[in-house]
This record gives sequence, C-alpha cells and structure tokens, in this order.
Amino acid sequence: MTREFGKHFLVEFIGCPPDGLKHVDDVRSSFLDAAEKSRAGIIESHFHQFEPYGVSGVILIRWSHFAVHTWPDQGYAAFDVFTCGEMDPEVAIEELRRSFRAGRVEMEVRSRGF
Amino acid sequence: MTREFGKHFLVEFIGCPPDGLKHVDDVRSSFLDAAEKSRAGIIESHFHQFEPYGVSGVILIRWSHFAVHTWPDQGYAAFDVFTCGEMDPEVAIEELRRSFRAGRVEMEVRSRGF
Repeated sequence: MTREFGKHFLVEFIGCPPDGLKHVDDVRSSFLDAAEKSRAGIIESHFHQFEPYGVSGVILIRWSHFAVHTWPDQGYAAFDVFTCGEMDPEVAIEELRRSFRAGRVEMEVRSRGF
Repeated sequence: MTREFGKHFLVEFIGCPPDGLKHVDDVRSSFLDAAEKSRAGIIESHFHQFEPYGVSGVILIRWSHFAVHTWPDQGYAAFDVFTCGEMDPEVAIEELRRSFRAGRVEMEVRSRGF
C-alpha cells in the first residue's frame, strides 16, 4: 500500500454480561461516551433496538465511523473504528471494554487505502 | 474462530472518476441501489456531504451495516459490508464498482466472531 487513507480497527468484545448489550439506551450511552473520550468529532449517530434485544449503532465522524452490533445471548459485540487519525481509537476501545465488561478483547488493525 | 457471527468485506475502489464521488445525492443513490439489488433489508440510512466535496454514508441492515467514505481528489472510496449472511455482498460490490466506475477494486474478507 503506497497511500494510507485510514486505519480500520476490527474489535471483538467477548464474554460480556448480556444485560449491558441488550438495550439501545445503554449501548448508545457507552458508545457516545467512548467517542467523546477518544476526541472523535461526532457528526451524527444512529442506534437501532432489535426485539426482544440487541443493538446496532453507527457514529459518523469526519471521514470516519464507529459501528457496533451486539449479540447479548452470546455475550458478544463486534465493534469497528475506521479513522483518519484525528482521534485516539485505543481510548474508545478501552472505554467500551470497560462499559461492556468484556472478559476478552480481540483486535485486528487494517490499513485502508491503496 | 469457533463461532462466526458475520463476514466483513473491506473494499477499496481505486481509480474512480472524481465527479461520481463528490456529491451526497449521487453517492446515496448508488449506495441505496446497491443495497437493494443485494437484497439487504435496509433499516435506516444516513449520508453526509463534506464541503467542498466528499461523502460519508452508512446503512444499517439487520445486525449488519454498509459504510462508505469517498476521497474524490484521489479517485478513491473505502467501502465496508458487514453481513450476517441474509444478503449478497458481492452483488453490492459489483453494483458500486459500476456506479463509481472504479478502475480497480481491492477486497479483503474477514470473519467476525470469536
């Protein structure tokens, strides 16, 4: 890759207590808090409640995004940060790890560009 | 990985004519068309116009998402499909390749889960 436009963090939160992943208000609040603490300039955010539980959410940042999908039954949440470098993704990841009380975190970082 | 919850396609569209990547109306229209043709059940979609040009957009699908960021000056767009399997991501990728008239497409597929 000769030109990197962004870094993409693919994060798996494993072994989370199901209750913290069920409801849109909890997930939104953790997520917005993590975005703020990582100094991500939020443009807009959208969260969706699935019935009976489970949440998907996205935050648009300047040329970047956060995304989350939760599977409460499995104690699992998939989290993405695509960033062009004006924020600190690892702060967001640590904040979410704490909020979701994940027992284990797996992370992969990919360069985006060509 | 013993349990795969979804597949994540990280796609780079390279060598695109800049005009097709500049304006939110064009990008939204290509994107929604691609989502529909790939039988993705759209829950909600949000697109943002940057000034003077460039677009970020996300579509929430059931436990899945599409995301795009465009860099018109560089003829480049980064595209993501996170899917749990009820749609055909390759149809969406081919539709977008055609809409953006990308000279080259690079793609990586990652399993999401643990």
